[in-house]
Amino acid sequence: MGRDLSALFDPVSVAVVGASDDPAKYGHAIAAQAVRANGRRPVHLVNRRGGTVLGRTAAPSLSAIGEPVDLAVVSVPAAGFEDAVDEALRCGARAIVAITAGFAETGDAGRVRQNAVAERVRAAGAVMVGPNCLGLADNTTDLFLASDTFTPGGVALLSQSGNLALELQLRFRPHGLGFSRFVSLGNQADVTLVDLLADCARHEGTRAIAVYAEDFGDGRAFAEAAADAGKPVVLLTAGRGDASARSAQSHTGALTTSADVVAAACRDAGVELVATPRELTVVLAALSGGRRAADHRVAVLTDGGGHGVVAADAVEATGLAVPELREPTRQRLCEALWEQSAVANPVDLAGMGEQDPGSYAETVAALLAAEEVDAVLMTGYFGGYAAAEGGLGGGGAALADGEQAAARLIAARHRATAKPLVVQSMYPDSPSCRTLAAAGVPVFGATEDAARALAATATGSPGSQGSQGSPGLAPLPSPASPMRESGYMETRAALEAAGLAFPAAREIHDEAELLATAEEFTGPYVLKALHLLHKSDAGGVALGLAGPEELLAAFREMHARLGASAYSVEAMADLTDGIELIVGVNRDPRFGPVAMVGLGGVLAEALHDVAFTLAPVPADRALHLLRGLRTAALLDGVRGRPPVDVAAAARAVETITTFAAAHPEIAEIEVNPLLVRPDGVLALDSRAVLD
Amino acid sequence: MGRDLSALFDPVSVAVVGASDDPAKYGHAIAAQAVRANGRRPVHLVNRRGGTVLGRTAAPSLSAIGEPVDLAVVSVPAAGFEDAVDEALRCGARAIVAITAGFAETGDAGRVRQNAVAERVRAAGAVMVGPNCLGLADNTTDLFLASDTFTPGGVALLSQSGNLALELQLRFRPHGLGFSRFVSLGNQADVTLVDLLADCARHEGTRAIAVYAEDFGDGRAFAEAAADAGKPVVLLTAGRGDASARSAQSHTGALTTSADVVAAACRDAGVELVATPRELTVVLAALSGGRRAADHRVAVLTDGGGHGVVAADAVEATGLAVPELREPTRQRLCEALWEQSAVANPVDLAGMGEQDPGSYAETVAALLAAEEVDAVLMTGYFGGYAAAEGGLGGGGAALADGEQAAARLIAARHRATAKPLVVQSMYPDSPSCRTLAAAGVPVFGATEDAARALAATATGSPGSQGSQGSPGLAPLPSPASPMRESGYMETRAALEAAGLAFPAAREIHDEAELLATAEEFTGPYVLKALHLLHKSDAGGVALGLAGPEELLAAFREMHARLGASAYSVEAMADLTDGIELIVGVNRDPRFGPVAMVGLGGVLAEALHDVAFTLAPVPADRALHLLRGLRTAALLDGVRGRPPVDVAAAARAVETITTFAAAHPEIAEIEVNPLLVRPDGVLALDSRAVLD
Repeated sequence: MGRDLSALFDPVSVAVVGASDDPAKYGHAIAAQAVRANGRRPVHLVNRRGGTVLGRTAAPSLSAIGEPVDLAVVSVPAAGFEDAVDEALRCGARAIVAITAGFAETGDAGRVRQNAVAERVRAAGAVMVGPNCLGLADNTTDLFLASDTFTPGGVALLSQSGNLALELQLRFRPHGLGFSRFVSLGNQADVTLVDLLADCARHEGTRAIAVYAEDFGDGRAFAEAAADAGKPVVLLTAGRGDASARSAQSHTGALTTSADVVAAACRDAGVELVATPRELTVVLAALSGGRRAADHRVAVLTDGGGHGVVAADAVEATGLAVPELREPTRQRLCEALWEQSAVANPVDLAGMGEQDPGSYAETVAALLAAEEVDAVLMTGYFGGYAAAEGGLGGGGAALADGEQAAARLIAARHRATAKPLVVQSMYPDSPSCRTLAAAGVPVFGATEDAARALAATATGSPGSQGSQGSPGLAPLPSPASPMRESGYMETRAALEAAGLAFPAAREIHDEAELLATAEEFTGPYVLKALHLLHKSDAGGVALGLAGPEELLAAFREMHARLGASAYSVEAMADLTDGIELIVGVNRDPRFGPVAMVGLGGVLAEALHDVAFTLAPVPADRALHLLRGLRTAALLDGVRGRPPVDVAAAARAVETITTFAAAHPEIAEIEVNPLLVRPDGVLALDSRAVLD
Repeated sequence: MGRDLSALFDPVSVAVVGASDDPAKYGHAIAAQAVRANGRRPVHLVNRRGGTVLGRTAAPSLSAIGEPVDLAVVSVPAAGFEDAVDEALRCGARAIVAITAGFAETGDAGRVRQNAVAERVRAAGAVMVGPNCLGLADNTTDLFLASDTFTPGGVALLSQSGNLALELQLRFRPHGLGFSRFVSLGNQADVTLVDLLADCARHEGTRAIAVYAEDFGDGRAFAEAAADAGKPVVLLTAGRGDASARSAQSHTGALTTSADVVAAACRDAGVELVATPRELTVVLAALSGGRRAADHRVAVLTDGGGHGVVAADAVEATGLAVPELREPTRQRLCEALWEQSAVANPVDLAGMGEQDPGSYAETVAALLAAEEVDAVLMTGYFGGYAAAEGGLGGGGAALADGEQAAARLIAARHRATAKPLVVQSMYPDSPSCRTLAAAGVPVFGATEDAARALAATATGSPGSQGSQGSPGLAPLPSPASPMRESGYMETRAALEAAGLAFPAAREIHDEAELLATAEEFTGPYVLKALHLLHKSDAGGVALGLAGPEELLAAFREMHARLGASAYSVEAMADLTDGIELIVGVNRDPRFGPVAMVGLGGVLAEALHDVAFTLAPVPADRALHLLRGLRTAALLDGVRGRPPVDVAAAARAVETITTFAAAHPEIAEIEVNPLLVRPDGVLALDSRAVLD
């Protein structure tokens, strides 16, 4: 149910410790903002020299205020930080906003100091944001404790970077986006990204949550909180590339998680992952209206060929489809448009829009009404007929009026449906486009932005790339009794007990045991030397030993070469028409057990054709991941081969990943190859590493 | 050396046929533009009703003008088009700009009509742009024959879409980009994209050429003209996706070429291929300065962590690298910056820029001077200290002056080097950013734009993704004596004669010949049934026949089943440690012989791991393509396999593609598999289809 952050976002009273009249000091900027809320709650300014700050009497200390303080902003030099926090707690502060820098970001000594403070804060039943943060603001409670003002709106921004927050504010404006809250995360010594995400999910004034984070803290909890948020969560993060990972690590001291894992966690949790402030803004502009595309089929319309085909490409590049329209829709368009108009999709008014802007509205209406269309993209010149620039064939007042009328009609059609409509215009600031924007139709100047926006509305739709076999996160199973040994035979036995099928195998130590085993089941046999990390690389695996003689010969050769203390004699599986997969689970320091499924064998390394997801992995999601592999075609049997039992493979993935998730002591476990045949699956080899 | 288009771009006199006072008529817009050049050359307005147009006396016909007309704009109804053109030619017109629509774009009848007119134009030694075009403009000769004015500048725009041209004009402005020429391509009945490209390449006033085309006409000639242009050529085209291909085909009647082929031709010719007007603008903004990155190593600097890591990711996402800086550079930065600054790359001033904007200049200087750095990206807040918005910690006049001084210092450092410097700023319109832009430093508001711009400056650099084994296009070989038969044995023999190695093989028709052949060379043997299109699918291939007995048995079984008239008995190649490649050449209707190289065998279909390039393919480029395959790791031997002879494979690609290019009668030819072993290559199968 998350921590109570009410004192942080709606305190009864506020004190700014370190308030100053010196414009170069951050304590000045914060104080100047804080006092704006005077009507709502008492705001006290504290400066150890007393005197006046911003023309008000400043208290020389928190205690000197003489009344309890609910929230204290601490913006003092690092040396005085602990004392200031302790005094705040003595004065009854339930919330601390710690601006002061010089802690975990400077090294271990600083980390120890900030953790000690966080301990005392928690012991006092209070909460603390920071240290090393830029403050926070809540426009829904007139709380202004950051150096900047944030335009009011529905987006809660949780950011680890102040400059990025500023850029977002600049980018939000033209889209009519604003902020419900802004929180600078700082070092997250006490209140974490996860606490804030959970609180913003409950916050009525917040419609969408935007996050910039380099350090996720408890990544698994972040993903779970996002999955349960019930409102859009958009994550801007870095670390895809070598340089950013290097840098994020050095400057936040964060344990880095591979970009694959972050992307997988976001997909699993339904978080929109973006790479730049611009993309974040575009996605929020699309999602803040609350419209979602039921599936991934987009209709594109324009008045001039070029924009239509360029937009169609941009839309398909995002993974959405621009299918041909069905006959009834085409019929309706043929009746509404003139002869040279194209009605297939993209729909091209071919100049009719310039003669009669109403034809835009007719077309949008027909497309929004078409059952084969899930979302509509209008692109090109619309807005130009009324724009100062005029345009091809010139503008003209009559045309401008017609365009405005069309804009109002389009807005009405938009209101009458739940389908997303997105507009790209050469004149996004034109009166007609402003009319559309005011009606909640996202308008963009760039084609790729409009396409990205549509993709965001279709995330999770059956046909979209980001879609999921099953939405939401599978809960972690309760821990099973830990494995004590991670030897080949132990791992194999544990997985077998969990329900994974292996070929028959016996551990042997000498020729007598070997020959006895050869009696138990018939060849061909496989011989594996045990207690070697990479058996096959070390020449510790012999395959296809036809009978007892070959088995014995192989044993003698291998034993002479490797002198292993034990070997495994196994029934050789029939590889005919089989596909080899790899299924592994690694324990990520942030996100816990992370599953990897992919094409196995030698090719796996060459192709890196693998998919990641948080473990445990339900079979339906596993199926979805397998179907999404680049080499998925192999599963259906190419060149006349029979298809393999993908469903059985998916069930095996569920078995392996659920087992691993129930064993926190397992650092990594891998089944490779997992042989998938037309008639089921068989695990041919496995290995595990315990913590 | 290309057609003489002087009459088109710098005519002695101009007449607008169909000039009108009716603002709804295109002949009005054009006439209004045309007369602006009055000082430079006589401009006559022609309207069949005579009278006055735009306050000038209009001639009732071209002939009535009474003096020769060098260029005639024809903007009359389709019915009167032929007469107008014929009259223009009679009046000595050397150039026609045909606005009139209703020809090839409406179907075959229209195509026949426009071709007949084009014939007469050429016969008269004249040139014609259009029909169905929007006119043209040349700012270097005060020629304004389009409905819009285009800001003067160095970019020649050749466009098949009027609205896209308008959008580009709007996008160019903030980057200080303008137009030397604008030509609306129309139906290209006479003057083609290639003619115009070649002429703009020679045109002194043009520094870069931007093309929007859906129909390339002679694609091979387009690629050759672009490769020889000697100035940047940027192509915006559509057709990557299904919908745009569908639409472009229907609305230009163009033979569509696969997006893979267009992309390959652009890469071969050094053309920057872009997907949207925005991307085109960004690339031109980067290239118009004429700077090129020697290699792909980028240094990123910022004043606040977030922007640095986000930009580093964006840069790496384009295929460029953001490597750690070397010790001397770090040393220099450590001396210039304060303790908490990060000097690895991305370089993070960590707030020092806000205290002392000069630190930006110091850092840029150090990075531009670093030998391990090929280009620099400055990102984030710079511009904000002087911007109205103020920002974190507020602005202040002193800071603003410091920022301007820093901007001038950065501009000076930029002038002193040839390395590209690109800036992303939250305040791209700020005075300091305008100072940088005025000094030729490209400034962008969006991180991804700055990254894309850098990628454009590094195209062709050794480490960049777009780079080439050998730049430029290999010339088509002169045609060899045509193949008459494309049977298996004929194709095999022809390729063998061209220098490609095959295993020993004999065509046989009965058991006697079969056994005789078995004497000639030893097994294992391969038996192939001939005259079947897909031998292996039809069960017409038997591999690994150990000796004459197995060979004979296989022959009897296969002959009973298929009853083919002929078979091939071949020596079975040793597949050990071999990789199977596929090498093919298809004749594209636009781009001529196009080569495909990729991973062969069953996987090829599943992975589609193939690369395309224009044939013939020199060995060095073939090597580059093979190294660029996703599965390239297989070539170097994975899991202890020995590496294969990639150089021999590359030579084989040159042999096959040169052969195909010299045989225009070959519609498609394929060698699959091409077996590449550690000790060389062997073609195991091949097939060809003649036109």
